[in-house]
Amino acid sequence: MRSFAEKVFASEVKDEGGRHEISPFDVDEICPISFHEMQAHIFHMENLSMATDGRRKRRFQGRKTVNLSIPQSETSSTKLSHVEEFISSSPTYESVPDFQRVQITGDYASGLAGMATRAPSKGRSQTVESRREILDEINVVTVEDFEVVCKGLYRALCIREKYMQKSFQRFPKTPSKYLRDIDGEALVANESFYPGFLCKGEDPFRTEDLPANLGYHLKMKGGVIYIYPDEAAASRDEPKPYPYPNLDDFLDDMNFLLALIAQGPVKTYSHRRLKFLSSKFQVHQMLNEMDELKELKNNPHRDFYNCRKVDTHIHAAACMNQKHLLRFIKNSYHIDADRVVYSTKEKNLTLKELFAKLNMHPYDLTVDSLDVHAGRQTFQRFDKFNDKYNPVGASELRDLYLKTDNYINGEYFATIIKEVGADLVEAKYQHAEPRLSIYGRSPDEWSKLSSWFVCNRIYCPNMTWMIQVPRIYDVFRSKNFLPHFGKMLENIFLPVFEATINPQAHPDLSVFLKHITGFDSVDDESKHSGHMFSSKSPKPEEWTMENNPSYTYYAYYMYANIMVLNSLRKERGMNTFLFRPHCGEAGALTHLMTAFMIADNISHGLNLKKSPVLQYLFFLAQIPIAMSPLSNNSLFLEYAKNPFLDFLQKGLMISLSTDDPMQFHFTKEPLMEEYAIAAQVFKLSTCDMCEVARNSVLQCGISHEEKAKFLGNNYLEEGPVGNDIRKTNVAQIRMAYRYETWCYELNLIAEGLKSTE
Amino acid sequence: MRSFAEKVFASEVKDEGGRHEISPFDVDEICPISFHEMQAHIFHMENLSMATDGRRKRRFQGRKTVNLSIPQSETSSTKLSHVEEFISSSPTYESVPDFQRVQITGDYASGLAGMATRAPSKGRSQTVESRREILDEINVVTVEDFEVVCKGLYRALCIREKYMQKSFQRFPKTPSKYLRDIDGEALVANESFYPGFLCKGEDPFRTEDLPANLGYHLKMKGGVIYIYPDEAAASRDEPKPYPYPNLDDFLDDMNFLLALIAQGPVKTYSHRRLKFLSSKFQVHQMLNEMDELKELKNNPHRDFYNCRKVDTHIHAAACMNQKHLLRFIKNSYHIDADRVVYSTKEKNLTLKELFAKLNMHPYDLTVDSLDVHAGRQTFQRFDKFNDKYNPVGASELRDLYLKTDNYINGEYFATIIKEVGADLVEAKYQHAEPRLSIYGRSPDEWSKLSSWFVCNRIYCPNMTWMIQVPRIYDVFRSKNFLPHFGKMLENIFLPVFEATINPQAHPDLSVFLKHITGFDSVDDESKHSGHMFSSKSPKPEEWTMENNPSYTYYAYYMYANIMVLNSLRKERGMNTFLFRPHCGEAGALTHLMTAFMIADNISHGLNLKKSPVLQYLFFLAQIPIAMSPLSNNSLFLEYAKNPFLDFLQKGLMISLSTDDPMQFHFTKEPLMEEYAIAAQVFKLSTCDMCEVARNSVLQCGISHEEKAKFLGNNYLEEGPVGNDIRKTNVAQIRMAYRYETWCYELNLIAEGLKSTE
Repeated sequence: MRSFAEKVFASEVKDEGGRHEISPFDVDEICPISFHEMQAHIFHMENLSMATDGRRKRRFQGRKTVNLSIPQSETSSTKLSHVEEFISSSPTYESVPDFQRVQITGDYASGLAGMATRAPSKGRSQTVESRREILDEINVVTVEDFEVVCKGLYRALCIREKYMQKSFQRFPKTPSKYLRDIDGEALVANESFYPGFLCKGEDPFRTEDLPANLGYHLKMKGGVIYIYPDEAAASRDEPKPYPYPNLDDFLDDMNFLLALIAQGPVKTYSHRRLKFLSSKFQVHQMLNEMDELKELKNNPHRDFYNCRKVDTHIHAAACMNQKHLLRFIKNSYHIDADRVVYSTKEKNLTLKELFAKLNMHPYDLTVDSLDVHAGRQTFQRFDKFNDKYNPVGASELRDLYLKTDNYINGEYFATIIKEVGADLVEAKYQHAEPRLSIYGRSPDEWSKLSSWFVCNRIYCPNMTWMIQVPRIYDVFRSKNFLPHFGKMLENIFLPVFEATINPQAHPDLSVFLKHITGFDSVDDESKHSGHMFSSKSPKPEEWTMENNPSYTYYAYYMYANIMVLNSLRKERGMNTFLFRPHCGEAGALTHLMTAFMIADNISHGLNLKKSPVLQYLFFLAQIPIAMSPLSNNSLFLEYAKNPFLDFLQKGLMISLSTDDPMQFHFTKEPLMEEYAIAAQVFKLSTCDMCEVARNSVLQCGISHEEKAKFLGNNYLEEGPVGNDIRKTNVAQIRMAYRYETWCYELNLIAEGLKSTE
Repeated sequence: MRSFAEKVFASEVKDEGGRHEISPFDVDEICPISFHEMQAHIFHMENLSMATDGRRKRRFQGRKTVNLSIPQSETSSTKLSHVEEFISSSPTYESVPDFQRVQITGDYASGLAGMATRAPSKGRSQTVESRREILDEINVVTVEDFEVVCKGLYRALCIREKYMQKSFQRFPKTPSKYLRDIDGEALVANESFYPGFLCKGEDPFRTEDLPANLGYHLKMKGGVIYIYPDEAAASRDEPKPYPYPNLDDFLDDMNFLLALIAQGPVKTYSHRRLKFLSSKFQVHQMLNEMDELKELKNNPHRDFYNCRKVDTHIHAAACMNQKHLLRFIKNSYHIDADRVVYSTKEKNLTLKELFAKLNMHPYDLTVDSLDVHAGRQTFQRFDKFNDKYNPVGASELRDLYLKTDNYINGEYFATIIKEVGADLVEAKYQHAEPRLSIYGRSPDEWSKLSSWFVCNRIYCPNMTWMIQVPRIYDVFRSKNFLPHFGKMLENIFLPVFEATINPQAHPDLSVFLKHITGFDSVDDESKHSGHMFSSKSPKPEEWTMENNPSYTYYAYYMYANIMVLNSLRKERGMNTFLFRPHCGEAGALTHLMTAFMIADNISHGLNLKKSPVLQYLFFLAQIPIAMSPLSNNSLFLEYAKNPFLDFLQKGLMISLSTDDPMQFHFTKEPLMEEYAIAAQVFKLSTCDMCEVARNSVLQCGISHEEKAKFLGNNYLEEGPVGNDIRKTNVAQIRMAYRYETWCYELNLIAEGLKSTE
């Protein structure tokens, strides 16, 4: 037996010796070590040569250029390959250390085609990928196609630019520069286009110096509120000359985009460019990761823990974690057992009586019986997820603890939110933008919500606020709460217009609006209305049927009113609002197309992985996307399949947010939990994490002054010039890579259009 | 253009309508909803029928039995299928609610073969799996093979039972019962076999009532310390009659196991049983998940947050997270800048001078420059990982902040550990077992370490302590610090024996030993010594070469000394020690085989996925395994590929631990982070998480009194009887499932051996 055992052992050893020296497990995916070793070696060699003679160094650097495709001839090389060189020679680039760039030389058409030979990226749906791969091989982009594609992308970007500027939302300067270049016009820097944010520092509830009444008259027409100098002008229908939206133009633009995202060559082109972006980043990372890390290590005092990060997507009613809510409920019982807190039709109940009625005692409550956490049961089931907002399944408790308008005037809810705020202040570097609901069911919702806000003095320096509007017209209509959709819009927007025109008559609301930075449109996107928005669609006042309007219909009318409202508020020197809907969590691609046109930024964006054209457009316009992989993991998409890493590598402007800490998170610091899990699962580097954190500050609605404080004074500039590493801890090499890559893609479009002339 | 757009939209809608109603993404893996819906439906129907008439209910229940294989004939059904019924009729089962059981009817041989038709589980290395699958199909287990297999598994279990009992380590009662049943003997319950733990409650540093000197004489012989009544007996070599280990027996047993794990039929059988366990659990979950959840919801006051969990594998030198260490360094500079803290050969340095020498200022330090966190660079590189213990790459800082024996007598390190302890006490339900190093390089290590411990009064009610011994004889030998391996063993164990025999002469060490609950053997397992332990191996005193002994050699001599030591300590009424090595993180399978023989429990166990026989044996003996998927993710195995979920489903006794919070974790609560990430990535239910937490308490070395307090008074009983749901929050249904499944597998072996007689 021993000899047999020895044989077994020997074979074990042999087996182990060969395989396990380096890898004790089947390593079938990329093992990053060898890259690092190569990099360390190159680095070492460079240092050596630097020490000896300059010539040798130069020779070495000459080999740094990585050619992804073999140059075909010296003469056919276009200007494209020189974009980076042009940029990097600019004097503002001083702060960027030398790094290794990925350059494409040779004819750009061949360069584009060359991309298609790459193996599909690591996505799980490999069959889909490879099918697409074959399609690519057939539909090679021809020069003619290329021109068509560039025209399409150019017009798409112009459309977004127009809608953003009209509504005082954001469009970056760099693509504008390229668009003007194509138009043959000079770029006119217009700072007045920037959205207006609240100035910090003053008493947040100050009502003394509210502006005077303008005396304007308001009337809704075609779902949009029009502003008239007086009632007479209103009856004559002579509105004041604010820029009002034009529905026909919108529908034309929408139809153009609908056609564009389905066009074969545009799909192929976008798909290839995205794949290129992905490969390019991987090469960049391979070559420069250690240099980026070096920058961060030499950056004093700043690390991931003390760079600012904003939770850009969080619902106020679920902003505490389950344990916090449980503790609060138990505490409230401890203190308030005999207080009247709830009113039924028959009688008023004390907290004790309420729990007795529900047949429970708070001492026995646990997070299990509270049952507000998403589990395996909620996956693919938005309806079950919504039920989770009811603690212990009892709507009474939701009403008592998570609502603003109840018997105790939302006191408990206010206290919980203030506790969450206090935790943020203590953590110092974390901010949040909780979203509160306006339903549009009745016109007094705003005054109730704002008086809750002001009376409870809900203010936290680390919080700004948003309004979310659930898309549940159909529910209200079926219960006959509303006569038509127009009324819902009126309930949502008219009070805000009124408070803007006559702030002194609505002091609470005027104060509240100062803290509001944007509007969200929210509901289960996987429900489909079946309605297509067209010129034949009923106007909101005519929309009397019980069916819900489509996502685009909702979004357009929200945007239209926000646009007029922002013009008015801008004129009065008040803060303006951004449109930041939930978009692309599920459902049709038209949602993302709509957001591309009219939303400043979005939450989720998962479905971008289904449309290469929209994904590429979101990249080109650098539209911020607040992703919440833990939320998706419980509802729509398993964590490891989340496109977060893919999008980040391609250079989409991604931030991380919690969505619903009550339902999805376990620890006391939900935002840190979100970052930690992403860092672990996707193996993010510090630079990756700090880049995401920086994106979150750019995306959010905090004031200009604060952004300058958190990101550096130049933060409005794009590229490395706009980055202050001492504040953001993002390597300048990374910033330069992102900026050059972005310019390269924009320049491709410009070049494509030049050659047609 | 519009008409085209409408067409596109229509196709979009159609596409969405069909696919997205239920699943907005390509769902190619199991979608748990349908199961849940079925379950909810059954539940609803049952409730209905319960309300109407009993007969209908009974008919319904008749359909609850799920047959995984079609019964061949009524008569061939063996006793096997009745194990559960037998168990469940016992009176102690009262607390288990009704649940749906998975029963196999029909001939057991066919039942075994029937298992092989299942599709391979979700493991990534599908090619390996499917190859194994084919092998299975060929090597169908015959009745003859079955008997051979059962004999082998029976002897393997007997071997472990013997080594555990000899050393006062743990072996569960249930398999002992089956083994005695096979032997034809009655089970003698022998409580004296239990390990002795420290009693809590007394002054932890009390030295007044240390036991008297026994005056024994000690001598190392063949690497093991022998106890003699006096010096004369020692010279006559007449040791006191303690049970000493027998090397030849050990080698025989080892060779038997080496052969067993390579035997074809045993492999096939184990592989099939494990696959069956996996499928069985999945069916169980499908059928009973809602019932388990119901139990937990009805369990007052207890949830995952307030059930006890122990970090069973954590290194003291990395038990704080990186942010904590950074803060501590900055604080220490704030207070102690002018204190002399470090001594070089030339002169003594103040903290200020030390940092000046290192060319840095603590204000500028960040977690990036600290560089103690594992990143992509450490994957597959244990050597790089070890460097990460040096803050800012400076061994001076490691020495100052993370060592017990330095110029300031380890004051900083003690303070950091006490801070970590204070956090645990504050969190209340979290415990840790930090591991401190004894190297065996010199005989005074123990006295230094124990006086550090006692002088700094390092005591925390939520901590117990372990000793880790790095396997670095080769390093010491090559520097000529040690003449032979025997000396290393002597340095490790002789001081402990001496303090046990004459506590009053070693008061610090005697006090310190009260807090020690076990020994760990630790190093990079992927390094292979190339030596096979056999009777021809040099004795430790003869091991003078520079080569390192093998894992097994190290482990055996540690076990041998612990065994003698435990006998001695048990006799004196002192606490005993468990052997809890790092095992199966990488390297050869022999490590796991060794641990199966002589280790009470292990850390990691990843490599169990490579050996079905060992995995099955670890299941049968319910050997606790402290897994650390986040550590593995940085070092050896990507998170999603970790076998944690697979092992948990099969019913191996798994707990979660952090290993090295400094290197692997981001948040202030590393253990909660570990649980949270596992819960998110593996979609664990509350019951799963609480089961893992309960396992961690069973595995750890805290006192009997505390375990009874945390788990319930019956915790030493196995099965649902030993579970107190009010304390553990583990559903009784789950406990019953686990226990019945375990008994079923043990019974199979007993039945297999009965049929041979």
